[in-house]
This record gives sequence, C-alpha cells and structure tokens, in this order.
Amino acid sequence: VAGPLFTLTTDFGAGSGYAAQMKGVLLAAHPDARIVDVSHDVPPFDLLAGALLLEACLPWFPADAIHLAVVDPGVGTDRRALLAVDRTGRRLLGPDNGLLTPFLDGARIRAIGPDGAVPPPASATFHGRDVFAPAAAWLASGGPEEALGPEVRDPVRLDWPRAVPRGDEVTGETLAADPFGNLLTSIRTADLGGRAVSEVRVGETPVRWMRTFGEGARGELVAYPGSGGRVEIAVREGNAAERLGRRGVAVRLVLS
Amino acid sequence: VAGPLFTLTTDFGAGSGYAAQMKGVLLAAHPDARIVDVSHDVPPFDLLAGALLLEACLPWFPADAIHLAVVDPGVGTDRRALLAVDRTGRRLLGPDNGLLTPFLDGARIRAIGPDGAVPPPASATFHGRDVFAPAAAWLASGGPEEALGPEVRDPVRLDWPRAVPRGDEVTGETLAADPFGNLLTSIRTADLGGRAVSEVRVGETPVRWMRTFGEGARGELVAYPGSGGRVEIAVREGNAAERLGRRGVAVRLVLS
Amino acid sequence: VAGPLFTLTTDFGAGSGYAAQMKGVLLAAHPDARIVDVSHDVPPFDLLAGALLLEACLPWFPADAIHLAVVDPGVGTDRRALLAVDRTGRRLLGPDNGLLTPFLDGARIRAIGPDGAVPPPASATFHGRDVFAPAAAWLASGGPEEALGPEVRDPVRLDWPRAVPRGDEVTGETLAADPFGNLLTSIRTADLGGRAVSEVRVGETPVRWMRTFGEGARGELVAYPGSGGRVEIAVREGNAAERLGRRGVAVRLVLS
Repeated sequence: VAGPLFTLTTDFGAGSGYAAQMKGVLLAAHPDARIVDVSHDVPPFDLLAGALLLEACLPWFPADAIHLAVVDPGVGTDRRALLAVDRTGRRLLGPDNGLLTPFLDGARIRAIGPDGAVPPPASATFHGRDVFAPAAAWLASGGPEEALGPEVRDPVRLDWPRAVPRGDEVTGETLAADPFGNLLTSIRTADLGGRAVSEVRVGETPVRWMRTFGEGARGELVAYPGSGGRVEIAVREGNAAERLGRRGVAVRLVLS
Repeated sequence: VAGPLFTLTTDFGAGSGYAAQMKGVLLAAHPDARIVDVSHDVPPFDLLAGALLLEACLPWFPADAIHLAVVDPGVGTDRRALLAVDRTGRRLLGPDNGLLTPFLDGARIRAIGPDGAVPPPASATFHGRDVFAPAAAWLASGGPEEALGPEVRDPVRLDWPRAVPRGDEVTGETLAADPFGNLLTSIRTADLGGRAVSEVRVGETPVRWMRTFGEGARGELVAYPGSGGRVEIAVREGNAAERLGRRGVAVRLVLS
Repeated sequence: VAGPLFTLTTDFGAGSGYAAQMKGVLLAAHPDARIVDVSHDVPPFDLLAGALLLEACLPWFPADAIHLAVVDPGVGTDRRALLAVDRTGRRLLGPDNGLLTPFLDGARIRAIGPDGAVPPPASATFHGRDVFAPAAAWLASGGPEEALGPEVRDPVRLDWPRAVPRGDEVTGETLAADPFGNLLTSIRTADLGGRAVSEVRVGETPVRWMRTFGEGARGELVAYPGSGGRVEIAVREGNAAERLGRRGVAVRLVLS
C-alpha cells in the first residue's frame, strides 16, 4: 500500500531549502510519504498567481492527496492558518489570505489553532514547516480535522476576477503568465457556453483564435483554449508576457 | 516491490505546474509510481539541447524505467506522438520532432494513435499530460505497446552534429551549455579512439587539454573529456557559454 | 518498510541533469530509495552558502537519512572525498573542502579511497555520480564505513564566521541570502542567551527588531530570529540582498 500523498505549492524557490525542511518533517512522521512539488516558483507573495496554479493543478491529483500551499506574506502575524476540505473532499492547508480561494465555495474550513493537535510553531517566520506540515502529517495519520481548531465561516477571499459574458461577447483580462510567457485570462472556456469564437481582441489588437498555439505563425500572437480550463494568450515560440505584461490586459471574444 | 519508474524531461520550467499535472496523472494510475525529474529546464523549444540531455542522463537509470520527454513546439498540430523502444529495450515517449534522435537507431517505434489504448487528448496544447503520461501509465500496467498505435518507420531525426575525425585531427563544434556554462561539443570521447590529445583549438584560441577542469587556472579556458561521453569546454570557476556563446564555435583536437 | 532515504544538496542547477544521474545511480542500487532534493541552487562554488544550507536543513530529516552534498570546484584534483558521521550519527558525504564544516566537530571521518568499496570513478569531473552516489548506496546496503577508506583527522574547515558577544552587544555580519533575499547572519539566536534585543544596527542603519518580518511596514528593513537558528535581516515584501548585498554587512545587536 502506498503511503500518504502530499503536494507542495509555495513561493519559496526550489533551491531555498525551505521546501526540503517541510519534506523532512513529513518524512519524519510518515517514512512512506509520497511528496510532489507542484511549484516553488510562485512569484513571491503573488496570491492570485498561486491560486490560479492551484486551480489548474490540484484536480489532476488523486482525491486522497493532502495539498500544502504556502504563499504567506503575513506569516507570524495574526492571520489564521487554515484547513479547507472542499466540496469534493479535497484537503488543502494554507494561510487565510485568499490563496485557497478557488476551493472555498462550499468548503468545510477550520483554523489551525493554538489549542489544537498541532503544537505552537517553533518559528514565527516558517509556518510551512512548523504549522502546515505538522497539520498535514496529523491528517495523514487519520487525526480528526476537528482536533486542529475551530470552524471558520469567513475565510479571506481574493477579489477573484471573473469574465463578463454579455450577449455575443465575453470580456476579461490577463491574470498571470506561465514560464513560457503564455498568459492565463479571467475567461474560462466554460464561459463560452460551447459557442465558437469568431473574433478576438487583446487590448486593441485583433488576434486569431486557434485550437492550439502550434497553429500560429512563428511570433504571432494567438488566443486558444488552454489546458487548464482558461482562455490563454500566447506568442508561438515567443513570450506573450514579455510583449504584453502579465496582468490587466483586456481580452474580448466575440462568439458566433 | 517498488512501483514503476518514470522520468520526465521537459522545457516546462520546474515551477510551471505542468510537470506536476503529469505526475498527478501518473500517480492516479500508479499510486506506487516512482517519478524522477531529469530536467524541466531544457531551453524552450531547443530540441538539440533536449536530445543531448536525454543522451547524457538516461543511461544511468534502471532499464525498466519509462522515459517521458516533452519539448514540443508543434503540440496540437499533426506531428505524431511516439513510443520508441531502443536497441537496449529502453522505453521513451515523446513527440516526433527529433527530440528522441539519440535513441532511434535500431529502435521499434510506434505512433500513439487516435484509435489506440490512449483516449483522445482533452487539450490540444498539453500532450505531456493528456497523451504521454497516459501512454506511460498504460505501458507500466503491462499494456502491450502494439495497442498504442501503428508502427513508424520514418521518425523525424535531428540533423545530429557529428565530429569529423581525419587523420590526426578531430574537428567539431560546441552544441549546448550546462548550467555552469560548460559547453558540450559534437566530439565524443569515443571519437578519440583512445589516443592522447596534444593540441586543442577553440575557434582560433589554443587551449589546454585537461583531465578535469579543476586542473586549470581560475578563469582559464580548458578542454577535457566530459562525464557524459563528450569533449567539453569550460572555464574554471567561470562560464564558458557566456564567454563564447552556446553553439557553433569550432573545436579542433590534434591527436598524438 | 520504506527504502533508504537520501538527500541531495548541490550547485548543479535543478535542470542540469546531473542530479538526475545521481538519482539514477541510487535507484539502480536501491529501487525503493526515497530521494529528496535539498537544493541544486547553491550559488556555484559557494562553499559557505552550501554549508549554511546544510546546517539549516539537515536537522529536519530523519536520523537515518544519508546526505550527499556536492559543491566541488576541485573535483578531479587530489582533494579527498569524505564520509562524515557527526556526533548525532548523521551521515554526510561530500568533498573535503569545508562544505561539511557545520557537522565536523566530533565527527568520525573517512576518506573514500581508491582501494575501498567504491570503484575508481569513471569520470574526473563528476564525483557526485561516480563517487558519492556509489558510496551512499554502499552505506544504505549496510556496508561498513571502514571499507570506504582510511580515517581522516584533518578535514578542511571553512573559516566559519562566528558572532562576537561582548557584554551587552553581539556583533556579526551577513553571510548569505535565501531566494527571497532575506539575509542570514553570523549571529545565532543562541548567541543572545535568551536576552531581549533592544537595538539593532545593520551597517550604520538602525533597524527594528521584530518577532517576524510580517510585522514590519512594507519595504522596511527589519531584523528577527530566523527559522534556521540565525538572526536574519529582511525587507518586508522586498529584497534585502538587493538592497545591501549578500555578504559582509556588519550587524550589531544591543541586548537589554
């Protein structure tokens, strides 16, 4: 039987050693732990980019995985530390600063409290190691979530950008870039309601709608349905983020 | 008994979350999977650099490993997706764009087809997750390779640079850099036929032949037999790629 | 029962493929090996940064882990390759160049010798793969440490900076940066002897002492007890290393 599965998503930098310390704690509690790095390269303190990454990646993992997410500019202040069990039973641990927003609707949420199963943190600056990893180990041991701390009904949520469908148009904006410089937008492919796209504007520029960026000419700006369920903007064999910036460029789709 | 072993080599960027999604798919199919990252930092779309990395790294893995390689500028176009079983029985999965070149001589090759064991991809932009990972999971389950799709006899090959031995000379060129800036060349140490090297020129510059770059003076440009079976050019505690560029610098060895 | 646990700390770059080759060697010997990357982003050849990273990270791993550390500008020269078993029984493998300094006091140390259990290295440039990984595999198989090579009584040590407590003052300096640009100093929190800090100067600049950097104003330079047991200097949601440089800035604490 395979051991418990943990995923890590942070802005620590893969080489910082901080993720390794979290893994040491998990492995000390569960020698047979399986640990997957989702990313340690979330842009520092960028909660929206981290939330989008979680949204794109976590659905691909087995349902029994425990997900640790740490982008945490307020570590050591009085921001709460959360366990969220989302509508599908997926377990997430992270700070109460909006990072977990995509998973909060309908979730059971608890604050990891000072009087609960997790001992008070040794450090005020590294709750990934001292709070979230011990809480994850506790859950993986079958410890009841109630023992972590009190229920939370008002978790912090990001002002999560949503596309605006209106008649034959859907308007949105760019939100974040992947390492290729491909841009995620606030328009979900589900927002298209199955209709075809006849026209796209990125800012004022008309661009072609493609099934895949590989269909564009080299250097062409294109729009296409991305693999993570969002409309994306890319430059074929180029970098759209460098050309347009990462965030806040208006995107308008006309549906046919 | 250890679970199936998979390796991943991509240009996705380690922090992109794309490798993590592939791992989620592999772990959902094989909870006891062992997964090793060879690299997610192949320079974007650089097929030669990716092929050289595969050539250097894969021989060090156990023979039963299944290797996924995704550097794939043509994803979603009609380029084929391949399984190659090389002469030694090593299994590789990757796009039919030359990335697998070092392993194709004498290989059994199949295209992962629309009517085979792998369902049609959910996305047109992420075949690593939607084609190659499911194909790898299929093979790891003992699924027969024939079921993946039809045989391929004309895989795309890179115009793979080879050194030219001629009498007492071997000439070649620089091909790619590692993260230290050490340069791989098209001259394999096997091309030296066991003879000693008496003279080296890199471009027009005479440089010393060393057993190891640690023997050079600090900042000295040196040539030596690299750990991956190719002659390499380095600057001791410096960066040869920054000094010379990564590719296309002529290298000439005189043998004694 | 979980397989042997190995950790890797290098300056190879995560995407270089060199760490992957080491993992291939470990997995060939121990198919059930568990392998954790501490870091492959030690600044190239920076022995002090590597030593500080080991000091901060290794204590969080289970006691039976075998730690491979390779920052090795002298690879292939006559520098020795070491096994150190520290006072707590922790096993480390690495070059004899000071990288292991934090663990050498009271350690049993052996040189991995040409006539020992590890065959002579195939390459003169990659002892991580050809010496340290086979030595680690040997130890994990229960091979006796005596068989690796002769005892060493004079390992190379870094001129390890120590803070100077003097009456009500402790003075030290900045040593290295983490990926956030937070600066580690030569002052250990243990050097404060449990006393409160009433005043801090970084260079000539007075800065506030915080329990955590999250208490500072955005952009404020602060000092605080770091999670790795050292006093740290940071800029809240900013980069102290960019503002001050990484190393050699004087830090003075006044205790109350």
